[in-house]
Amino acid sequence: MPVLRSIRERFSGEQPLAGLKVGACLHVTAETANLARTLAAGGAEVAVCAANPLSTQDDVAGVLGGDMLVRAAHGTDPAPGQAEIAAWGPTVTLDDGADLLALLHETGSVPDGFLGATEETTTGLVRARGLGLKVPVLALNDARTERVFNDHYGTGQSTLDGILRATNILLAGRTVVVLGYGTTGHGIAARARGAGAQVIVCEVDPLRALEARMEGFGVMPAVEAAAVGDVFITVTGVPQALGAEHFARMKDGATLANAGHFDVEIDLPALDAAASERREVLPLVEQFVVGDRKLNLLAQGRVVNLAAGQGHPAEIMDISFALHALAVEWLAREGGSLTPGVHQVPADLDREVARLKLASLGVGIDTLTDQQTSYRNSWS
Amino acid sequence: MPVLRSIRERFSGEQPLAGLKVGACLHVTAETANLARTLAAGGAEVAVCAANPLSTQDDVAGVLGGDMLVRAAHGTDPAPGQAEIAAWGPTVTLDDGADLLALLHETGSVPDGFLGATEETTTGLVRARGLGLKVPVLALNDARTERVFNDHYGTGQSTLDGILRATNILLAGRTVVVLGYGTTGHGIAARARGAGAQVIVCEVDPLRALEARMEGFGVMPAVEAAAVGDVFITVTGVPQALGAEHFARMKDGATLANAGHFDVEIDLPALDAAASERREVLPLVEQFVVGDRKLNLLAQGRVVNLAAGQGHPAEIMDISFALHALAVEWLAREGGSLTPGVHQVPADLDREVARLKLASLGVGIDTLTDQQTSYRNSWS
Amino acid sequence: MPVLRSIRERFSGEQPLAGLKVGACLHVTAETANLARTLAAGGAEVAVCAANPLSTQDDVAGVLGGDMLVRAAHGTDPAPGQAEIAAWGPTVTLDDGADLLALLHETGSVPDGFLGATEETTTGLVRARGLGLKVPVLALNDARTERVFNDHYGTGQSTLDGILRATNILLAGRTVVVLGYGTTGHGIAARARGAGAQVIVCEVDPLRALEARMEGFGVMPAVEAAAVGDVFITVTGVPQALGAEHFARMKDGATLANAGHFDVEIDLPALDAAASERREVLPLVEQFVVGDRKLNLLAQGRVVNLAAGQGHPAEIMDISFALHALAVEWLAREGGSLTPGVHQVPADLDREVARLKLASLGVGIDTLTDQQTSYRNSWS
Amino acid sequence: MPVLRSIRERFSGEQPLAGLKVGACLHVTAETANLARTLAAGGAEVAVCAANPLSTQDDVAGVLGGDMLVRAAHGTDPAPGQAEIAAWGPTVTLDDGADLLALLHETGSVPDGFLGATEETTTGLVRARGLGLKVPVLALNDARTERVFNDHYGTGQSTLDGILRATNILLAGRTVVVLGYGTTGHGIAARARGAGAQVIVCEVDPLRALEARMEGFGVMPAVEAAAVGDVFITVTGVPQALGAEHFARMKDGATLANAGHFDVEIDLPALDAAASERREVLPLVEQFVVGDRKLNLLAQGRVVNLAAGQGHPAEIMDISFALHALAVEWLAREGGSLTPGVHQVPADLDREVARLKLASLGVGIDTLTDQQTSYRNSWS
Repeated sequence: MPVLRSIRERFSGEQPLAGLKVGACLHVTAETANLARTLAAGGAEVAVCAANPLSTQDDVAGVLGGDMLVRAAHGTDPAPGQAEIAAWGPTVTLDDGADLLALLHETGSVPDGFLGATEETTTGLVRARGLGLKVPVLALNDARTERVFNDHYGTGQSTLDGILRATNILLAGRTVVVLGYGTTGHGIAARARGAGAQVIVCEVDPLRALEARMEGFGVMPAVEAAAVGDVFITVTGVPQALGAEHFARMKDGATLANAGHFDVEIDLPALDAAASERREVLPLVEQFVVGDRKLNLLAQGRVVNLAAGQGHPAEIMDISFALHALAVEWLAREGGSLTPGVHQVPADLDREVARLKLASLGVGIDTLTDQQTSYRNSWS
Repeated sequence: MPVLRSIRERFSGEQPLAGLKVGACLHVTAETANLARTLAAGGAEVAVCAANPLSTQDDVAGVLGGDMLVRAAHGTDPAPGQAEIAAWGPTVTLDDGADLLALLHETGSVPDGFLGATEETTTGLVRARGLGLKVPVLALNDARTERVFNDHYGTGQSTLDGILRATNILLAGRTVVVLGYGTTGHGIAARARGAGAQVIVCEVDPLRALEARMEGFGVMPAVEAAAVGDVFITVTGVPQALGAEHFARMKDGATLANAGHFDVEIDLPALDAAASERREVLPLVEQFVVGDRKLNLLAQGRVVNLAAGQGHPAEIMDISFALHALAVEWLAREGGSLTPGVHQVPADLDREVARLKLASLGVGIDTLTDQQTSYRNSWS
Repeated sequence: MPVLRSIRERFSGEQPLAGLKVGACLHVTAETANLARTLAAGGAEVAVCAANPLSTQDDVAGVLGGDMLVRAAHGTDPAPGQAEIAAWGPTVTLDDGADLLALLHETGSVPDGFLGATEETTTGLVRARGLGLKVPVLALNDARTERVFNDHYGTGQSTLDGILRATNILLAGRTVVVLGYGTTGHGIAARARGAGAQVIVCEVDPLRALEARMEGFGVMPAVEAAAVGDVFITVTGVPQALGAEHFARMKDGATLANAGHFDVEIDLPALDAAASERREVLPLVEQFVVGDRKLNLLAQGRVVNLAAGQGHPAEIMDISFALHALAVEWLAREGGSLTPGVHQVPADLDREVARLKLASLGVGIDTLTDQQTSYRNSWS
Repeated sequence: MPVLRSIRERFSGEQPLAGLKVGACLHVTAETANLARTLAAGGAEVAVCAANPLSTQDDVAGVLGGDMLVRAAHGTDPAPGQAEIAAWGPTVTLDDGADLLALLHETGSVPDGFLGATEETTTGLVRARGLGLKVPVLALNDARTERVFNDHYGTGQSTLDGILRATNILLAGRTVVVLGYGTTGHGIAARARGAGAQVIVCEVDPLRALEARMEGFGVMPAVEAAAVGDVFITVTGVPQALGAEHFARMKDGATLANAGHFDVEIDLPALDAAASERREVLPLVEQFVVGDRKLNLLAQGRVVNLAAGQGHPAEIMDISFALHALAVEWLAREGGSLTPGVHQVPADLDREVARLKLASLGVGIDTLTDQQTSYRNSWS
């Protein structure tokens, strides 16, 4: 994780987090340990608890516990540990699902000098907004680096990787239908074409649909695409993007995968109802016999890059946690002047993460001369 | 222009512009005549004058003058015509350079019931802001359809087309350096790769630079790219993106083209100063002998898609003027409630243009079910 | 023409053509003059006449005539000049249509010491075979460098370039149907995709059709493609690839272009018969009204890259004429031992042209070590 | 395996193999069982033994043994079974390594009425040629369908798949160096670009190198590529394509994978000698510390798509075994008239496999009209 490492080195010298108490409620993995140590290197006192008991790596928790307060054990109810960290009095919190934030609000005990929180999931933000926020919250997952790296390139690659690991099919010559052409859909469509597939995009937003068409992809309603696709990938953010009317038209051997966060995009009850028979044909492939056709569902409709693949490559995590670290630094500096509510990540943080990533790749870029800057400014 | 035609048909039935007086100060061409007639079909009284005397097509002006007030003649000072239209008392104005808007402000005579203005250029918006705006102005060129169609796809294609027309070089196997990776730069880079070139991107914004790298393009400072490029295309928006230090390193036979709006991006005085000799080798190609190398400048550094090509394809104009028509309709409905100043085009107008374009292509898309809509809304 | 220049420099030193009399019956252009001088630099006595009176550039003929025997004048019957060169007693001939070869055979006067001929067109080879060949003929247009550069990259680019010059349409978002997936079809399909088009391939050979499918292109019978395409490009080598049954199904506004050698691939009489009206709408675009639809024929069905564009880029000609020069050198060395009839270009000549081209681009490549060579040889 | 199935159905009706005794010495897997049953359905008497004892699936051998003579057991010396099948008197043999063919020659007992053999590996052909062939042998692995599907599309995809499974790196933004630009190299380079990588090709053949350059890839000597690559993939067919001089220049974190048949392309002794330390960091990733840099070797330099992935997708096997079945049918018909020695697969068989594959995909193609056929024939 070279980007996070370069931040850690700067933090060690500058101590920008001195005096901060950071409570982090995340997946307790090696990457999170890296983040926690980076924050500690910056002068913060750090405490860690688990957002999800199943992702906790006990060895990591053990080693990290030698350096800081850690409350996490695999397979154990995370609530007591979360409560303990909330009560410890953090002045900045890091959440993946708004657990700490909810505790602070529900117990009415926002610590004195609290500067702000970060939240890295859409669900967490929905939950946060429901709390009647008394503190500023940085919406990390809306940051442009997250959209670009995590969604477009990370999920774009890992979704197809998950499908290949589950099925070992050849993508060249197949017709891949991508339902949903947001950032992730862009990434998946690009990678599917890059693998030799013919790509069809289904969308509800006409502007996105037109963009897909201008990229040379086929664009049509899902019910038409159902009849011609070989592989279907949902990434729409809505339930039942594929349902009974689509299953009824699919070709024998069609493969169904979901790349959206929740397992609602493929209508599983409808699929089950349509099938005369279902059986597991490979560890992550369940075959549904619908009429005289066999449809193959991957990973039970759960997000296929995690369920069938290894999730994001390490450099994606590096960029993501680098943004976390810079967000904490920014809250340390600016948090006091923010209004309660959800805030977007300042573009400068995104640019700084990108700059550090380029530096880690050994890639130099240009800078504007003073004359160019003043020319550009004269336009705004 | 099928999109504009479909709007015209609806306008004829609905008469949404009844009672409006629209003053349009644009390039008086066949496409503009189409727009003017569409507005008239919607019930507006329309008057037309010229934003630029050199682009006026006299035959178009003549025919259009049979139906509405037209003040435009090729090669004639446009000021009197503009003054006449301003004095005529428009309640909506369309500008390409803010001429009418300036007249209304400078003469202190904003007509009663004035609803709003549109402006389609960045320069016009700068000028508009300098007027101390008393009326709302819609910034058409910031609309997403404009960015996507005009800049990415339109200019992306036509820039390379202009270069091929000027030089007839083979792009396959050449190294094309794109300076500036904004929307237009994205389009040019994609088309250059699609033509078989190896593409290098030079940028000052680290996030854009990193995106270019993630697309598989080479990324490096311009001074390094100077030594390896065969074709250089500037689209940075700043002066001297290519200057003396770059010319000094370029290979023999390098080709220089500008795709930015102004002819300042290639430093022409520096090129002239560096050259021991210059001569026209083809109608749009000037050769500069710099040391023992020959550098080929296209179209005197003016925007190459217009200067060496035919500018935008008709479907780009169709989308652009469709947006104009919908903008006027929207001002008729909402203009009265807008504050003075520059406003962005509502996303709904962009989507409607896209929807009409898809319809004209015979492309259907999906719509959300009520259940999907409420699921999605539950997240915001 | 850097490749030809590098050959000329070597020829000047080595004089490999000393004693040869080369008669060249080609298009008398600047590029041909370059070739002629290269051969002369190699020690040959060279004489030039015109394969086609309309392509002769009189200024070139004039200047070249100062150095060698030239018989060519624009618009003049080429036969007397060809007869004179044939009678002059060449020991090697270069043909573009087999004119000199035919004269030597028909007059029964193959000169003593005749080493061989080159022919650069398919039609010329057909004619040559019909002569009952008494001499060896090198089939230049079957050489791999010709296929790769001329057909795939040269014609691939210039075909789309010709279409854009004739129509100024936007390729992004359009459906381009490529009829014929040989080398040129590969090139056109790749460039059309690279311009943002959705590409459909029509083929009669199942292996080629399957390759197109594996590349992610749509594959279907032409009669089905007719109903969905926006732009049709024929490059099949057979007549009536597009005929009445296709015209009957095409969409309003469809564009028809031919990239094959002869203007027979689009069935023009059938198109004319199907149309109720035809008129020129742009210099190279003729519109046929078929039922309620308008079909646009480009360049009267003649090969569109030449008829609407500028033909091949100079570097394509450079590679082509470099192969000519090496072919003459090879005939000088080996011609005496060849049997009469058509011979393929030895792979070594192709490789040498490629090597020189890479050198002119400043590109180095690897060479096998002795150990690697012997390992490889142990397998054959 | 739809293509093989369609052949089986035809064979059942036509019985083209009636009277044939086919001895198959292959990997005894489910796919091979499918092939054996297809041959039996065509009327042949079939006997199966193992080319490699480790790939034998005992359950398959057991079930198949109910229908025909099978001599294969996992982990058991295959020689006695091979000898038994050879002695059984086959009139056609199928080999993967020339075992049966060698037995027939070495024992001097080519059965009466022997029609021919097939061999599917390059090594097997080398061995076959060394036998002083008394019978015709069809070289299946040189068939165009094998080259296109197996090498280009199959290995192209599975090589990158293997690398992702071993490392979970992000390909977008990385520089992938492909050493060797034959059919497989083409496939790998295309897939790497399609995954967002910047691709550099290293070659020894100038024509291939120039083609790579025309595709927009970087081309340079391996020793230069060594300094800029992130991922190196060898597919050259020669030993030591990457050796000491390359390791010495590689960047920290470089990844080394081999996609060639033998594990000689990366010079493992030289890598070991250069390293101060080596350790396994992931199951298939060994890290070598060279100076202050870490180089990651995948799968000990063995062919990465098999060693780290799942090998070829089933549809690749389908095409491969379909060709086997048609080859046996062709030998039944034509074998008697063939000369001893190695023969290429007739193009008709390749075309028939492609035709059946297209049919299984539901893809129709065109056929030439009589007029078009005679036009085309007039040219040859």
